[in-house]
Amino acid sequence: MDITGTYTDQYQLSMGQVYFLTGGKDRQAVFDYFFRKNPFNGGYTVFAGLQVLLAALEGLRFEREDLEFLRTQGLHPDFLAYLKDFRFSGSIHSSREGDLVFPTRPVLRVEAPIIEAQIIETLLLNVLNFQSLVATKASRIRQVAQERTLIDFGLRRAQGLGGYHASRAAIIGGFDSTSNVRAARDFGVVASGTMAHSFVQSCADELTAFRQFAEGRPENCVLLVDTYDTLQSGVPHAIAVAGEMAKKGHRLKGIRLDSGDLAYLARKSRAMLDEAGLHDVKISVSNQLDEYVIKSLLEQGAPIDVFGVGTNLVTGRPDAALDGVYKLAFADGRPLIKLSENIGKITLPHKKQVFRAINGEGHFLGADAVGIDGEEEITVMHHPFIPHKSFELAHCAKEPLLHPVMQNGKIAAELPSLSDSARYCRQRLAQLPAEYKRFENPHIYKVGISSKLRDQRDRLIAAHQAGTPPAG
Amino acid sequence: MDITGTYTDQYQLSMGQVYFLTGGKDRQAVFDYFFRKNPFNGGYTVFAGLQVLLAALEGLRFEREDLEFLRTQGLHPDFLAYLKDFRFSGSIHSSREGDLVFPTRPVLRVEAPIIEAQIIETLLLNVLNFQSLVATKASRIRQVAQERTLIDFGLRRAQGLGGYHASRAAIIGGFDSTSNVRAARDFGVVASGTMAHSFVQSCADELTAFRQFAEGRPENCVLLVDTYDTLQSGVPHAIAVAGEMAKKGHRLKGIRLDSGDLAYLARKSRAMLDEAGLHDVKISVSNQLDEYVIKSLLEQGAPIDVFGVGTNLVTGRPDAALDGVYKLAFADGRPLIKLSENIGKITLPHKKQVFRAINGEGHFLGADAVGIDGEEEITVMHHPFIPHKSFELAHCAKEPLLHPVMQNGKIAAELPSLSDSARYCRQRLAQLPAEYKRFENPHIYKVGISSKLRDQRDRLIAAHQAGTPPAG
Repeated sequence: MDITGTYTDQYQLSMGQVYFLTGGKDRQAVFDYFFRKNPFNGGYTVFAGLQVLLAALEGLRFEREDLEFLRTQGLHPDFLAYLKDFRFSGSIHSSREGDLVFPTRPVLRVEAPIIEAQIIETLLLNVLNFQSLVATKASRIRQVAQERTLIDFGLRRAQGLGGYHASRAAIIGGFDSTSNVRAARDFGVVASGTMAHSFVQSCADELTAFRQFAEGRPENCVLLVDTYDTLQSGVPHAIAVAGEMAKKGHRLKGIRLDSGDLAYLARKSRAMLDEAGLHDVKISVSNQLDEYVIKSLLEQGAPIDVFGVGTNLVTGRPDAALDGVYKLAFADGRPLIKLSENIGKITLPHKKQVFRAINGEGHFLGADAVGIDGEEEITVMHHPFIPHKSFELAHCAKEPLLHPVMQNGKIAAELPSLSDSARYCRQRLAQLPAEYKRFENPHIYKVGISSKLRDQRDRLIAAHQAGTPPAG
Repeated sequence: MDITGTYTDQYQLSMGQVYFLTGGKDRQAVFDYFFRKNPFNGGYTVFAGLQVLLAALEGLRFEREDLEFLRTQGLHPDFLAYLKDFRFSGSIHSSREGDLVFPTRPVLRVEAPIIEAQIIETLLLNVLNFQSLVATKASRIRQVAQERTLIDFGLRRAQGLGGYHASRAAIIGGFDSTSNVRAARDFGVVASGTMAHSFVQSCADELTAFRQFAEGRPENCVLLVDTYDTLQSGVPHAIAVAGEMAKKGHRLKGIRLDSGDLAYLARKSRAMLDEAGLHDVKISVSNQLDEYVIKSLLEQGAPIDVFGVGTNLVTGRPDAALDGVYKLAFADGRPLIKLSENIGKITLPHKKQVFRAINGEGHFLGADAVGIDGEEEITVMHHPFIPHKSFELAHCAKEPLLHPVMQNGKIAAELPSLSDSARYCRQRLAQLPAEYKRFENPHIYKVGISSKLRDQRDRLIAAHQAGTPPAG
C-alpha cells in the first residue's frame, strides 16, 4: 500500500472542492500539529515520524486510480483537474525527530495554501501520532532495561501494515534491533531472531532440533528452551549442544525463555549454565513484556541479558493512540482561534515558535515557551489560562525548537539518519531531569506563552465573545 | 509499502535456512491459526482479513531489494537462490470471513512444506489478528447503535498504515462507510465526511462558512456547529442556511456535534431544528466514541442519527491486539504437540476440522467441536482438560467450519465481496443467542474435542512425559 493523494479523509476533499470553487484555495494558512496529553500517563513524549512524513509529502500525487475513484464520487471536473496536478508546495518547521515534546505546544508547523494544508492533514496526523506513540513506549522500556539488549518482536501482533513504521519508531526510542526483516531492510536496522517452538516440535526430539540449529547457524545460535520442559529438558539439552559446538570451535550465543515464571527460570537457567562453565551464554526472554514487567524482573534480580518485546511495544498499549491534532492558527494575514467550552481546547492563534529553557549544565529547566514567530527574546512566560502564574526566562539559555525542514514542497536540509535520531533522543533524555521521567506521577513540564501571544489571543477571544471577530 | 517476502520475522528465515541446509524443507506440515481469548472481554470474535491474506500469499515474492538485503545478512547462497524462486505452494482451509469464532479452536489451517508454512507465519498473524480485532470492535459498536448510521473516522489516529485495513475490517463488523478515501477506493466502500473546524475558522465568520459550504456541496451538506458556540451560534446559523438552501431547492442534510455534552447538545439541537420545521435534518456526533459511550448516549434518549467513530474503533482500544497464534500440529505424517506448564497452552495435535452445533431454528447451541479431519460424525465433545465434562452432539445439526480457500498456492474459489462478508457477519450474529453477545460477563461459548482427538492428544502427552515422543 503506497501512499497517494487519497490517503486522506473524505472531508478534506469536500472542503478542498469548496475552497477551489469559491476561489479561496490559495489563501496562505498556518496549521500547528500538537497533542494534549502525554501517552502512558508519562511526563514526556518522543517525537517521531518526521522523515517518513516529509518523504511522503514530497512525493504525494493523485494517481490514476485515485482520480478515477474520485470521478465516481461526483467531484467537480475542474477540481479533479486541479488534483491531477496536485503537488504539496508548502513549508514546514518542525521539532527534530527524537526530541522530547510536551502537551499543547506546537510540535510542527505547516505553512501552505489552505487547500494543500487541508489535504495533507490526515496523512500528517496518521504518521506522526503513531510513530511518536511507539517511540515514547520504546524509550520507557529503554529506561528500565538500562544497557541490556532490546529487540522488537512485534510484527505478528502489530496493527497490520502499521508494524512497518512501529519498528522504525522503536529504534528512535532506544531499541537495538528488530525481528521485522522488511523494516530492517528499509530503515537500515539490525534484524534479529532466534527460533520458534515449531522448529523444536518438527524434529524427532529437542536435542536433535538443537543440534540441527547449531549446525545451520553456528555463528548466531540462540536456542529456545521451553518447548517441553525448560529446566528438565531445554537447558540441559542446550548445555549439551554448547559442549558439542565448542569442540567444533563454535560458541552457543544464548538461550531464550518464552513462558513460565521468567524470573525464576532465568535464575535457575543462569545457575545451570554457569555450573557448566557457560558464563558468556546470554539469557533472552520474551512473552508479553512491557516496561512494568521488565522493571519487576530486574528488581527481582533476574539475570536477563536480552528482552524481546512485541505487542505492548508496537501497539503502544494500553493507549494505542496519541491524541495529536492539527489546528488552523493563521490564514490570509489573520491570526485565528478555535473556541471551546473546555478551556484546554482553545487553540493558540498566530504563526509561532517554541523556545526551551536550558540551564548552565545543559539540563532542561522544565519550561517550553511559545511565542509569536519573530518575537524578540521572551523573558517571561505565562500559564496559558491562569492569570498571575508565570515563569522567569531572563537568566537561562533559550533554544528554538522548530527548524525549517521543508521549503516549498522540497525537503529542506539533509535529514539525520535513523541512528542519529536515536542518538539525539538519548541525548535529550539525558538532558531531562529524572522527575519528568518517572512512571508514577511525573513532574509536569511547563508550557507557557509569551506576553505578546497571550495578549493577541485574549483580544481574539474577546472579539468572538462580542460577536465581532476581527477582520484582520 | 507493498508486502514482499521480507514481511516476516528474522527467525523464520533463520529456521528456513536450517530446514533448507539440513534437507528438511519439504516436510509437509500442518499449522493452525487460533487465539486464546476473545478481545474486549467479549463473548465472541469476528474473523476478518482472510481475503487480504490470500491475495498477499498468492503474490508473495522475494524481490530484488529483499534478496540484496538478505545477502548482506550472511544467508547461505543456496538458500538465497531458493528464496529467489520462492512461491507459496500450500493449501489453506479457513473459517469464512465474517464468521464468529471462539478461543482455542482452529480458525484457519495451513498445509504446506514446512519451510513455506514458516516463512508466511508472521504475515498471516499480522493480517488476521488485526483485522479480526477491529471487526469485533465494529460489531460491538453496531450492536448498540442498532440501525443508526456508523461511519469510521479513524485514519488520523490509526496506527500508521494499519488504518488502511482497519477501515476494511470495520465494514465487515457492521460499519456503513468510512472517511478513509483510499480504503473506500480499494475496497469499494462508501466514502463519507462533513467539514472541519478549520473551514469555519478560515472564513470571515461562521455564517459565511456555512453558506460557502452549502454552495459548494448542496447535495451533501452537513454543517459542523461547534466551532464557537453550538447552541448560541452554530445551530442558529445552520437553521438560517437550511432556509436559504430550501429557497434554491436544496436540503440541509445534517449537523455535526464534535465536543461538549453530546446528549444535552443533541437534544437541544433537535428541538431547535424541529421548531424550525427541519425534522429531516440529521444529527451526527463524534468525539472519542466507543460502544459504551454510544450505549450511554442512547440510554439517555439522545436523538442521534449518525455516529462517527475513530480512535477506539481503528486501534481496537483498549486491547489493541488479538493474541492469535500459529502452531504446528502435524509434520511428516506425525501428529505434534507443544507442552506447557500452563495447561491452557498445550496445543491440539493433528490435522483438524471444526463443527458447529446448530439447533432446529438455525441458532447456535454454543458449542464448537474440534475433531480430526475426516472423522465420522462426532456425537459427543469433551472439555479439553476437565475429565467427565462433555456435551451431547447427537441430536443437532453440525456445520463444518473450515472450508478450502487456497489450493497449491492458488486462491481456490471465488471469494465473497466485502459486503457479502459484512452480510454474513450480520447473519451469524443473528444466529448467536443474546447471552453470548452481552458486554458484561457474557456466556462462555464451549469449544470441545472429539473422543478420538482427545485420545490421540493424551497419548502424545504421555509419551513426552515418558521421554519417548512417538516417532510416527
